[in-house]
Amino acid sequence: MIRDQESAERLREMPVTTHQVRVRYAETDQMGIVYYANYLVWFELGRVELLRSLGLAYSQLEKEHECILPVVEATCRYRSPARYDDEILIETRPAMLRGSVLKFAYRILRKGVDGAEPTLLAEGETVHIVCDDQLKRKALPVHYAEALRKLLPQHRGHE
Amino acid sequence: MIRDQESAERLREMPVTTHQVRVRYAETDQMGIVYYANYLVWFELGRVELLRSLGLAYSQLEKEHECILPVVEATCRYRSPARYDDEILIETRPAMLRGSVLKFAYRILRKGVDGAEPTLLAEGETVHIVCDDQLKRKALPVHYAEALRKLLPQHRGHE
Amino acid sequence: MIRDQESAERLREMPVTTHQVRVRYAETDQMGIVYYANYLVWFELGRVELLRSLGLAYSQLEKEHECILPVVEATCRYRSPARYDDEILIETRPAMLRGSVLKFAYRILRKGVDGAEPTLLAEGETVHIVCDDQLKRKALPVHYAEALRKLLPQHRGHE
Amino acid sequence: MIRDQESAERLREMPVTTHQVRVRYAETDQMGIVYYANYLVWFELGRVELLRSLGLAYSQLEKEHECILPVVEATCRYRSPARYDDEILIETRPAMLRGSVLKFAYRILRKGVDGAEPTLLAEGETVHIVCDDQLKRKALPVHYAEALRKLLPQHRGHE
Repeated sequence: MIRDQESAERLREMPVTTHQVRVRYAETDQMGIVYYANYLVWFELGRVELLRSLGLAYSQLEKEHECILPVVEATCRYRSPARYDDEILIETRPAMLRGSVLKFAYRILRKGVDGAEPTLLAEGETVHIVCDDQLKRKALPVHYAEALRKLLPQHRGHE
Repeated sequence: MIRDQESAERLREMPVTTHQVRVRYAETDQMGIVYYANYLVWFELGRVELLRSLGLAYSQLEKEHECILPVVEATCRYRSPARYDDEILIETRPAMLRGSVLKFAYRILRKGVDGAEPTLLAEGETVHIVCDDQLKRKALPVHYAEALRKLLPQHRGHE
Repeated sequence: MIRDQESAERLREMPVTTHQVRVRYAETDQMGIVYYANYLVWFELGRVELLRSLGLAYSQLEKEHECILPVVEATCRYRSPARYDDEILIETRPAMLRGSVLKFAYRILRKGVDGAEPTLLAEGETVHIVCDDQLKRKALPVHYAEALRKLLPQHRGHE
Repeated sequence: MIRDQESAERLREMPVTTHQVRVRYAETDQMGIVYYANYLVWFELGRVELLRSLGLAYSQLEKEHECILPVVEATCRYRSPARYDDEILIETRPAMLRGSVLKFAYRILRKGVDGAEPTLLAEGETVHIVCDDQLKRKALPVHYAEALRKLLPQHRGHE
């Protein structure tokens, strides 16, 4: 479900939301690098900021629309370690929306110093099912769905 | 509110609940020691196991009695660092219960190897207010309050 | 690299290491379920306990053999949510060892109450590269490699 | 060591470093509020940004000066809960520097909406011992000590 070379290529050409964070001491482990589970926390920040950039708030989705987005699958491929105090770029794009199933793709990069290119640190995907607070499937509110659909690679392919 | 030499001495003589955990890799930081916020997670494990040892479950307290125990004050004094894979003893005792205010005291120790004495790693206290799920004060259910009171240093002093 | 239906079936017949933990309050989020990144922490506990069950300690691997096992890929498929205070079973098995590449497979289950069958909550895999502390590839110490190879599905198929 | 009413009053008049973060989903728990240990992570962010605002980097302190700042005492008093997606202000000031002992004071606030005053959520302190990487006491590099001393409440009192 998660990996598909063709769509990956198309995703690469997509516009993305980029959110910046700095590595926290709490996120490192005794290897001196960021503990691997914390990349999934960064993915969460990325998708929240993607929604926010569309004028949509995940907190409103929960409170007003009684919609939650539990994750049913998460994958991360780690390329190069992130270290304490690194400036991290989280790139996020919607990758699929079919019924109640929503998929996001992410790239984690270390910001380049003095205008240098960023370094790719990790890539990944998460798949979510739109649910009510009893974890029963439901549809995403229409204005969320429409805003996300416009950013899908399929949609762009039709242009 | 938290520090009181006299009660600290009395606490030392008290029976305690001891819960054992092993340090997780995720809990270390790049200093090679356990990140300082994680001791507060261990305190939480200690007070949950204290309640469990009394036949009381914190999960039932939330679900059946609609009681939560948000923390209003937490202190930890760090004596010696915990390291990855250490076997940790979490000692917990109720230290005060007045109306809706409940205080626990904790000691964190590293288990001794081959029968050696444990090493004290940290000590601390947490103060909680018994609340409903709207964060309004309420009384602790009677059987919780009675079970905890029997373990208070004041109570023992009267024996 | 990670998903392979045939090997998945063989994995199902394998003996496993089972490690038990209880869901911590700190591991829940405001959905009332365990935050999705924490399953990767449980995977880490599982592979450490697998090594320990073989008489091998991950802490010794780092200290004595100057070997670390950074993760290059992690996947988790979430089936049913874990909740606060649940008793969790972490099943772990080595799934592949080729040169410096080591793969583990995991199943996360909720322990059944009163003798009931456990419920599958999540499944996943992690792929690691055996490295020195400068993150350069190296071979796993021989006795680690041998102990793990005996548990691989391929090895069992030859019996 | 940590609480001292008079110095607390003086601290209130001090200039501070303010760092802004947004509450992450991962930081909430099933009470629907931020888990209490995470305030200590915010304190860490505050003291790092305080150093950065002085042109000093904690990462350089570790790498170039082989100085680490393990915490020997941490206290947090929780006034009002932080919730998911809240914009949080972390105010930090050095509160004491004597030999190898360094103390910071913190206030955590929720940013006011539409120009409203911020709401105080928590206050706290951390005490650190300046150490080398073997956890032996040493002096803070001179330019770090001087920059911090200028911000101490005592120093300001002399002006």
